[in-house]
Amino acid sequence: MKSKMKVGIIGVGRIGKVHTLSILNYMPEVEIKAISDINFEGAKEWALQNGIQHAYQDYKEILNDPEIDAVLICSSTDTHSTISVEAAKAGKHIFCEKPVDLTIAKVEAVINAAMEANVKLQIGFNRRFDHNFKKVRELIKDGTLGEIQILKITSRDPEPPSAEYAAASGGMFLDMTIHDFDMARFMMGCEPTEVYVAAACLVDPAIGEAGDVDTAVITIRFENGGLCVIDNSRKAVYGYDQRVEAFGSKGKAEIENDVPSTAVWSTKDGIYKEKPKYFFLERYMDSFAEEMKQFVAAIINDTETPVVGFDGLQPIKMGLAAKKSVAEGRPVKLSEFI
Amino acid sequence: MKSKMKVGIIGVGRIGKVHTLSILNYMPEVEIKAISDINFEGAKEWALQNGIQHAYQDYKEILNDPEIDAVLICSSTDTHSTISVEAAKAGKHIFCEKPVDLTIAKVEAVINAAMEANVKLQIGFNRRFDHNFKKVRELIKDGTLGEIQILKITSRDPEPPSAEYAAASGGMFLDMTIHDFDMARFMMGCEPTEVYVAAACLVDPAIGEAGDVDTAVITIRFENGGLCVIDNSRKAVYGYDQRVEAFGSKGKAEIENDVPSTAVWSTKDGIYKEKPKYFFLERYMDSFAEEMKQFVAAIINDTETPVVGFDGLQPIKMGLAAKKSVAEGRPVKLSEFI
Amino acid sequence: MKSKMKVGIIGVGRIGKVHTLSILNYMPEVEIKAISDINFEGAKEWALQNGIQHAYQDYKEILNDPEIDAVLICSSTDTHSTISVEAAKAGKHIFCEKPVDLTIAKVEAVINAAMEANVKLQIGFNRRFDHNFKKVRELIKDGTLGEIQILKITSRDPEPPSAEYAAASGGMFLDMTIHDFDMARFMMGCEPTEVYVAAACLVDPAIGEAGDVDTAVITIRFENGGLCVIDNSRKAVYGYDQRVEAFGSKGKAEIENDVPSTAVWSTKDGIYKEKPKYFFLERYMDSFAEEMKQFVAAIINDTETPVVGFDGLQPIKMGLAAKKSVAEGRPVKLSEFI
Amino acid sequence: MKSKMKVGIIGVGRIGKVHTLSILNYMPEVEIKAISDINFEGAKEWALQNGIQHAYQDYKEILNDPEIDAVLICSSTDTHSTISVEAAKAGKHIFCEKPVDLTIAKVEAVINAAMEANVKLQIGFNRRFDHNFKKVRELIKDGTLGEIQILKITSRDPEPPSAEYAAASGGMFLDMTIHDFDMARFMMGCEPTEVYVAAACLVDPAIGEAGDVDTAVITIRFENGGLCVIDNSRKAVYGYDQRVEAFGSKGKAEIENDVPSTAVWSTKDGIYKEKPKYFFLERYMDSFAEEMKQFVAAIINDTETPVVGFDGLQPIKMGLAAKKSVAEGRPVKLSEFI
Repeated sequence: MKSKMKVGIIGVGRIGKVHTLSILNYMPEVEIKAISDINFEGAKEWALQNGIQHAYQDYKEILNDPEIDAVLICSSTDTHSTISVEAAKAGKHIFCEKPVDLTIAKVEAVINAAMEANVKLQIGFNRRFDHNFKKVRELIKDGTLGEIQILKITSRDPEPPSAEYAAASGGMFLDMTIHDFDMARFMMGCEPTEVYVAAACLVDPAIGEAGDVDTAVITIRFENGGLCVIDNSRKAVYGYDQRVEAFGSKGKAEIENDVPSTAVWSTKDGIYKEKPKYFFLERYMDSFAEEMKQFVAAIINDTETPVVGFDGLQPIKMGLAAKKSVAEGRPVKLSEFI
Repeated sequence: MKSKMKVGIIGVGRIGKVHTLSILNYMPEVEIKAISDINFEGAKEWALQNGIQHAYQDYKEILNDPEIDAVLICSSTDTHSTISVEAAKAGKHIFCEKPVDLTIAKVEAVINAAMEANVKLQIGFNRRFDHNFKKVRELIKDGTLGEIQILKITSRDPEPPSAEYAAASGGMFLDMTIHDFDMARFMMGCEPTEVYVAAACLVDPAIGEAGDVDTAVITIRFENGGLCVIDNSRKAVYGYDQRVEAFGSKGKAEIENDVPSTAVWSTKDGIYKEKPKYFFLERYMDSFAEEMKQFVAAIINDTETPVVGFDGLQPIKMGLAAKKSVAEGRPVKLSEFI
Repeated sequence: MKSKMKVGIIGVGRIGKVHTLSILNYMPEVEIKAISDINFEGAKEWALQNGIQHAYQDYKEILNDPEIDAVLICSSTDTHSTISVEAAKAGKHIFCEKPVDLTIAKVEAVINAAMEANVKLQIGFNRRFDHNFKKVRELIKDGTLGEIQILKITSRDPEPPSAEYAAASGGMFLDMTIHDFDMARFMMGCEPTEVYVAAACLVDPAIGEAGDVDTAVITIRFENGGLCVIDNSRKAVYGYDQRVEAFGSKGKAEIENDVPSTAVWSTKDGIYKEKPKYFFLERYMDSFAEEMKQFVAAIINDTETPVVGFDGLQPIKMGLAAKKSVAEGRPVKLSEFI
Repeated sequence: MKSKMKVGIIGVGRIGKVHTLSILNYMPEVEIKAISDINFEGAKEWALQNGIQHAYQDYKEILNDPEIDAVLICSSTDTHSTISVEAAKAGKHIFCEKPVDLTIAKVEAVINAAMEANVKLQIGFNRRFDHNFKKVRELIKDGTLGEIQILKITSRDPEPPSAEYAAASGGMFLDMTIHDFDMARFMMGCEPTEVYVAAACLVDPAIGEAGDVDTAVITIRFENGGLCVIDNSRKAVYGYDQRVEAFGSKGKAEIENDVPSTAVWSTKDGIYKEKPKYFFLERYMDSFAEEMKQFVAAIINDTETPVVGFDGLQPIKMGLAAKKSVAEGRPVKLSEFI
């Protein structure tokens, strides 16, 4: 590629801004030609401040620009699949934030559209690019840990969402656990076959009244015979808790939460360390830049993206299986979802 | 009590010897008057070497000695309940190794016999007395962690037993996980209501052929709404792995494995620490002494023992529920076992 | 300030490039108007690639540009003081890399020139802005640790420099330990009074032949009565080792090295962690950005810079005292250097 | 040896009791035939309670008992050398608590007496037998760390002694640092040549008025060219702080303090760990048993004791050198003490 690759960013809310800044700061080979946002005024001003030439209210302006090679779809979840399909038809490579959609059919439609249009498709499961999780995956991949027999994922948010958000988002499994479902597949390197969930509403009764849960222990069987357990809570008072432990025939690997400093201090009252980084943007900032770099590299080098469409589909199936398991009080096979 | 309390030890295999030495070393207020063992010759010699006056082949000699206040039942599991009932009838206080029996009825028989005879009964769940587990329990009990919402127990043995042993012992859940079931109740401070198990045979196919499993993820619901997950493996190549993490409304607590030294060393190849203490006797030695001290104290002060008969019964029910869950592929309620 | 603050960067070797990128990435309120470098061709091309308008071979072009508010002096050490004095006379605010100079007189000349011209002067002791060291300083400053009685600084490089470099740089104390001298003053919050050094050449005999040392234990007395010890080595095979421990009347604080990931893995052979970040640029990248932000803020808000000229002078005196201590085998008072 | 080895314990204050219990609990091959103590009544009763046959006020009764093979000299420091010499003349093997004496001449007298009488002599430097320090020594001895270039010993007591005790004990260097001097020689595996001390009185002014110091940074040169630094404080508010770091050409090793449990807990306010074991008896209990086992083994197997007379002499010289360094404000060579 002689000239700069050109991208358009559809939706510049919190995560759209993160991707914009990653590209501006770290990817001199990429030009952000345009952004769009339904909240136009603020978006326009923000684009100007960051030296982006074009700002639109309607994302179709971006899709219609023949110079634009790729789009980042960072709009609200309910618009992901429609825009993705249109973007594919317009011949744009696609980076789509997670979840692609809450229904299997619509995710499959996106996958098919990208395939037919022969454009790249990458799903925004950024945690795969985090320094800690990546290291554990490497230890699995290079055989240090042998065959993985038990995988444990701890994923706890510092603060619960509002009950309204919890309900509208498709529930905890499709909104929050979806990252952990992806992590489980990423670590195991094979596919899940069955999901069992023990869930409860222990953090906020309003979440329960809205029909959702806020605490869960999720057991997943994988096709290699390995077992995975995820524990989720919507509220960890000490901060964002994001860990994994992989136990295999040759060893185990664990990660600790990232902290603002390595300081340990001791007084007559005890020994103290710093609490984990509290906010997901602070905790995962590097991983957002890394996923974007790899998306760009996949386009430039015409290679497969590191998180393909099928990686967007499977966690949706797992989330639906989790919901069914809670509803019916039994282990649910993934094969129940065709 | 003016004179020394007198005890008899029934069975001086590995664990019987541990208790004998605990008493000899740390409990000057207790006299071991007699031991018995069906393997008489070796036991007799060992008793002599340790200054114990009487050694018998038949445990009834101990039960018939009116001077003996209490017995430690450390014989093979299948004899625990019979001897315990007889000991109760003989008016002896009873320390019985775990498991009391593999059937509910026989455990209940022991509990009833002790109650009728008005003798103390303590079950040998030593891990409750371990410095690490005890500290977590204290943090729960004193309210530091708030209401416990998720309890995670990791329990992995360094080496699998032979397939013959695995089968004869009642299977992994009644032989190995039983300690973890007790730990779960101890930590939660309330009763389990439902058990779901995802199990597999990933360590040794011979164990599977013998009808047992060697790897499991066990989800337990408790009556306070809290969720517990135990992960078990019969083989952790890096050594004995015994940890707990309690997560509650006000915080979490975790323990690390004990190590032979705190040394950390760094070379051009990496940073190294010592592996966990490998053998359960080495790891839990202090806890064996502590449980014995508290048994003796309960008799001397006429207080309740710290691990009562009911504490011996509940883990059996949990183990049977676990087996049923594996057999039927569904969560099993404790109430299915009356 | 309505318009952007304009800076010129004198010397775009390794550290000059770091500062350039910090400003480009994180300081939208600053414009890098020009750079200069005696190695003109490469510098010019690099400037173009980064969108910098002007590139000169002669730094005086920068000093003569009336639009430029501040200069970053990142050229070779022997040019620091001359350029700094000229910059002050030209009315430019000055960020000068460490060491300002290896002689007291020339450092004082820079301080005086800046004072007379009423321009800001900041010295490039970046470690003060590191997340780990900063946290320890905060714990001292807010009184958590009480009066500091013993301060321990470990500072070991991963690889020794060439013997030629070692000699030309003024020796280990003025080249490497100078950062630790600054750290000691920063932590203690008061001035040193006496320096004693036990030094040796244990890493590379060629360094010794060149008249320098590569290993040292340095004891410093501070005016508050506190004691400080620095241990230095030119070669730590496990990587860059940068730690501090502050011990006071109310407690202590320690930091650990930063690592690429928090992963810990366990196999039959042992327990492993990642080695420290190896390279100083990798280790301290954030601190370089932070010092630059604070330099810019000091100019914009017209406040004192966080590392003033006197902070550049004192470590030079400490380094000279250290050399004298080695030469004469005795503790040397700072007051011996007027 | 057919029959049990017989020992007498001279002085059953705190440390004498520790050794008594070690032998009673762990050394069935040893019989404590007699104890003596100038505070006779309490000692007699305590002996009886522990099943020791003979209790004397005068230690000579022990020396005169031809059946006794070895004595443990646990009386006050000022009596160590006299009793040791007499014990040697009486043909008893000798375990003598540290320090043997505060003067070089008297320590040498003990060494000579033991040599002439051909009896074993072991000095009570128990820390060599501690699991943590032992591990670091092993990593040095087996070559993992290469040549040791910098050795750092941190040794801080939880509470200062009274000013009276501080003065009477010979001062901090002979009373407290003496253990660290021994540790330095043990770790380095060679002899010290020069000592420099920066000391202060920062903990308790009364200690200063009594002519002693309570805070020190001590630099020691060793004959292999390696440098050692010890930092001492009489008061660490967070508890007993006992660590070592050995840095060599091939790596480094560090130890952490022992803690009552490995628990780490996290709340909204921070992350917490347990404070170090507070009291030296609690911290070093295992090492006291181990040194006694090795003393007994040296006698039974007729091998050299692990801590010989010369090991009792060198730390005294180092302590005297430290005092001289403080008095004269200069590095002091060990060769100044013949």
